[in-house]
Amino acid sequence: MSGAALANDSVMSLQSNPNDWVLQTGDYANTRYSKLSQINRDNVGDLQVAWSFSTGVLRGHEGGPLVVGDIMYVHTPFPNKVYALDLNADGRIIWKYEPKQDPDVIPVMCCDTVNRGPAYANGMIFLHQADTTVVALDAKTGAVKWSVVNGDPSKGETNTATVLPVKDKVLVGISGGEFGVQSHMTAYDMETGEQVWRAYSMGPDDQILFDPENTMELGKPVGADSSLKTWEGDQWKIGGGATWGWYSYDPELDLVYYGTGNPSTWNPAQRPGDNKWSMTIMARDPDDGMAKWVYQMTPHDEWDYDGVNEMILTDQEFDGEMRPLLTHFDRNGLGYTLDRETGELLVAEKFDPVVNWTTGVDMDPNSENYGRPEVVAQYSTEQNGEDVNSTGICPAALGTKDQQPAAYSPKTELFYVPTNHVCMDYEPFRVSYTAGQPYVGATLAMYPAPNSHGGMGNFIAWDNINGEIVWSLPEEFSVWSGALATAGDVVFYGTLEGYLKAVDATSGEELYRFKTPSGIIGNVMTYSHRGKQYVAVYSGIGGWAGIGLAAGLVNPNDGLGAVGGYAGLSSYTALGGQLTVFALPD
Amino acid sequence: MSGAALANDSVMSLQSNPNDWVLQTGDYANTRYSKLSQINRDNVGDLQVAWSFSTGVLRGHEGGPLVVGDIMYVHTPFPNKVYALDLNADGRIIWKYEPKQDPDVIPVMCCDTVNRGPAYANGMIFLHQADTTVVALDAKTGAVKWSVVNGDPSKGETNTATVLPVKDKVLVGISGGEFGVQSHMTAYDMETGEQVWRAYSMGPDDQILFDPENTMELGKPVGADSSLKTWEGDQWKIGGGATWGWYSYDPELDLVYYGTGNPSTWNPAQRPGDNKWSMTIMARDPDDGMAKWVYQMTPHDEWDYDGVNEMILTDQEFDGEMRPLLTHFDRNGLGYTLDRETGELLVAEKFDPVVNWTTGVDMDPNSENYGRPEVVAQYSTEQNGEDVNSTGICPAALGTKDQQPAAYSPKTELFYVPTNHVCMDYEPFRVSYTAGQPYVGATLAMYPAPNSHGGMGNFIAWDNINGEIVWSLPEEFSVWSGALATAGDVVFYGTLEGYLKAVDATSGEELYRFKTPSGIIGNVMTYSHRGKQYVAVYSGIGGWAGIGLAAGLVNPNDGLGAVGGYAGLSSYTALGGQLTVFALPD
Ligand SMILES: O=C(O)c1cc(C(=O)O)c2c(n1)C(=O)C(=O)c1cc(C(=O)O)[nH]c1-2
Ligand SMILES: O=C(O)c1cc(C(=O)O)c2c(n1)C(=O)C(=O)c1cc(C(=O)O)[nH]c1-2
Repeated sequence: MSGAALANDSVMSLQSNPNDWVLQTGDYANTRYSKLSQINRDNVGDLQVAWSFSTGVLRGHEGGPLVVGDIMYVHTPFPNKVYALDLNADGRIIWKYEPKQDPDVIPVMCCDTVNRGPAYANGMIFLHQADTTVVALDAKTGAVKWSVVNGDPSKGETNTATVLPVKDKVLVGISGGEFGVQSHMTAYDMETGEQVWRAYSMGPDDQILFDPENTMELGKPVGADSSLKTWEGDQWKIGGGATWGWYSYDPELDLVYYGTGNPSTWNPAQRPGDNKWSMTIMARDPDDGMAKWVYQMTPHDEWDYDGVNEMILTDQEFDGEMRPLLTHFDRNGLGYTLDRETGELLVAEKFDPVVNWTTGVDMDPNSENYGRPEVVAQYSTEQNGEDVNSTGICPAALGTKDQQPAAYSPKTELFYVPTNHVCMDYEPFRVSYTAGQPYVGATLAMYPAPNSHGGMGNFIAWDNINGEIVWSLPEEFSVWSGALATAGDVVFYGTLEGYLKAVDATSGEELYRFKTPSGIIGNVMTYSHRGKQYVAVYSGIGGWAGIGLAAGLVNPNDGLGAVGGYAGLSSYTALGGQLTVFALPD
Repeated sequence: MSGAALANDSVMSLQSNPNDWVLQTGDYANTRYSKLSQINRDNVGDLQVAWSFSTGVLRGHEGGPLVVGDIMYVHTPFPNKVYALDLNADGRIIWKYEPKQDPDVIPVMCCDTVNRGPAYANGMIFLHQADTTVVALDAKTGAVKWSVVNGDPSKGETNTATVLPVKDKVLVGISGGEFGVQSHMTAYDMETGEQVWRAYSMGPDDQILFDPENTMELGKPVGADSSLKTWEGDQWKIGGGATWGWYSYDPELDLVYYGTGNPSTWNPAQRPGDNKWSMTIMARDPDDGMAKWVYQMTPHDEWDYDGVNEMILTDQEFDGEMRPLLTHFDRNGLGYTLDRETGELLVAEKFDPVVNWTTGVDMDPNSENYGRPEVVAQYSTEQNGEDVNSTGICPAALGTKDQQPAAYSPKTELFYVPTNHVCMDYEPFRVSYTAGQPYVGATLAMYPAPNSHGGMGNFIAWDNINGEIVWSLPEEFSVWSGALATAGDVVFYGTLEGYLKAVDATSGEELYRFKTPSGIIGNVMTYSHRGKQYVAVYSGIGGWAGIGLAAGLVNPNDGLGAVGGYAGLSSYTALGGQLTVFALPD
């Protein structure tokens, strides 16, 4: 059985051509690795800006451009414009898509007006707008081929995520974990936009598309009502578990992978139980959405450690055997390695030594707590109780890593992980649910990890087999930009101050830095055009870390607690929205 | 008598140090010439982007940064933020000034929300905001030392211009030619902000600060009521003549020079007479504002050819004699050379051969039309009458050159002039005056000069002694960016598509181009820091030419007729607001 036959052919062939960059994630496996090596560790120091493009929109620019053949696709945060730029003509604008979206969606977006970008397949560009409209655009002309509405912003349903084109479907998630949305993953027919299936994160088995006998967790069937049993009454209906992260796909196993977000509200006392399947890695069949296996990383979350970060699919030797692995750096501070075929848990280790809310995961398959993290009582916001300020919890709610995707180099077998080095005080309070109103229930303050290097971030290299940090580069602010690894043995990432940095893939030594116009929360990508390799990244401060600047907030507790911790950013950068493209001199 | 003693000492000493860039105009003489030569015609092709900075504001970015010592001052269009950036720390933000201005000023700005930047003197940064608030900021801390209000936006009085610090005063102008503002030049005490004098462009002699005996035009005293006599009744009270351009100063002669704008309304039939002193070059005493000499270039304007463009002060040989010259490229398409001491008219020649509204200026001192342009009847919008569309007039209302300042190199004795190659149809109609409402009275359409190269601009080298174009580089769009000439024999300018270009000062040969993030309407500047020469320019499409993109207009006649002609810009660029700084590789 051939993987290519199962997957979307156009995506499969384009992702294997390093000249193109067809998915936000680089490839289905989410490695963010490029085989291009014209720019390498010896010459990256000579990198220059080749050209640049202002998107005409301010606030946080997440995701990155796509390149398919001679066209680059550039997108923006709300109002989610898409530009098709002609690489043969210095980036001349071939077409522009400018949706008219009701600005009422802005206040129901929890963490800035970001959008992690469109995806390409079968001659179409698929974009999931903030207002949850999913559009298919003709990639050559920008004409709308179909559009469908995935959710209702008046209930707090919005979108920031990219989409995943798989086979003849486009998979899309939803945001709303701070608004009590019963969240879901939905598949639409790629050619017509018709809905094919929808899998909720919580609810009855027929809503979550679980088969009690055949959906497995850690080697055992989940059984009937696996979600309902973990909620009090109807609370699952406002249970959160948003699906706003990254999605990957294994064409051989024919499984899609993604994680679910926090249970709603942030006040854990209001929702007794494990709150399944929030905070869960899901492996689903793309044809019908049925879950093959699942693993809940943070049962009954007490810290907002959404489990949505990317799942990176690699084939590596583990204990002397080649295994299909899935590596995931969770907000909760643990780096997980699983067998992506079976869901077996292989590694769960802290990828920042300051993580203190847990002593670690019970790895004993015979233990009744198998796979559960042990919670340190002092940092249990549930145990400390409502209206009590639990202090010194590491990591902060935005996790040791948030959505900023890591990269993997098969040459070094290392993962390059942009991380947060931030701790928090967390005070839960009782809140009542009103559709479309924030359903948060906690006051937060964030600050650099105490007794460390003083900064709020590290850029690390991670060994997913041994669960170890190989090297760690301190950063003044969280690294909120996605990494890129290349066959040139260089790893790229951006910083919130606005630097694009290139480091040696083996040693971490800094080889190049350039100050782009604004803070970088975009993801670095690379492509080749007419025989020349380019590296490109968006600037545009924002996202949760940059929400103070993006939304003009100054109260330290505003922006769900992020404003205070990142206040220093205003000495480095102002709002922006630019693409900067780098190359070696001719 | 020493010039330095008369001028502002801090400005005099800083303008003579090529490491600094203390005034928007480069120097009091408005030459936009730098003695720096590290970047020169041989190596400019190796130029690279050194760093970049997003201003956090979109729309048209005119003017450019200032550099004083280790600090760079960056400003924005409305709301007119000012950033002080630390050149010793990669542009870290030392302070930021963010005025709160009523957005009601935006609709009374005729030609985008641009601002041509602050000026430095005596440890202060002087900024004239859109709402006509003039502020003095402590250059080290950004603290407001004083502020004064120069006009009333509810009457259509706004500001886009820079200010001129001279001696112990700051001179400021006003915009409002499209709102029937009786415009003026005003001097404020540099230390206190107290008003010292105000000279109106039209009105009684005591308002225009004319001395009937000693204020001269073309060698003759202007006589009493020189302005009043040229208006019907009280029309001078809503006569326009805005002072929104550039101001220069000659410390030896102790004279300031500036031009006045169009008479209001654009319908010439409504205001019989020469409409003095609209469209006039003024030479005034900075101490008391008294006019020494004046010259009206376009009496009774019928095309909106504001006379506000910069006056460039040079000392050159003319007819075998060293003369203090003033060179001015007027909107009306004529390049003027005058003796700046006496106001004697030496040269008036077309700097674009397509100029057709006039056959030229009567240069015979004995003629009664001495100094007047002869109007071609076919292109007289007055003669053709109200509600008649006069077609094919060249140049268009925005002139053969608008505010985009030219540069002069003493090495080549050439002027480098960014020009428009645009013609128009002009249909005047009757309009009535209401304070604060547009008082325009004409419908315009603009298009590339017919039967030419198809583009809308040229970048030319001009010989001001012989009144001749030396070379001319065709451009697809108007060159709306200010030029820079350097001792490295390189001339820089930006294009509306977003290119920074460097050309050979002698031959015009293109030596370098770089695509910046957005269209360039800013003015190129250069400075040196720690022994390294930098070239810097703002990107950010807008201004009158870019008003369609800036204000989101699509009707071709909107934006005072500019939208249609420049519609093609949307294929090249989107809104922006960035500083890009260039240098040679280390
Ligand atoms: O639960 C949700 O629905 C939801 C949505 C989003 C989002 O859509 O951006 C974020 C989060 N949660 C979140 O917890 C979070 O840390 C976060 C960071 C960001 C960002 O783009 O910087 N978005 C989000
Ligand atoms: O008469 C006026 O008051 C006035 C003001 C301005 C301005 O303040 O920008 C412009 C003009 N007129 C004008 O005629 C014109 O061509 C123009 C171009 C621009 C620009 O910045 O691109 N401003 C103005």
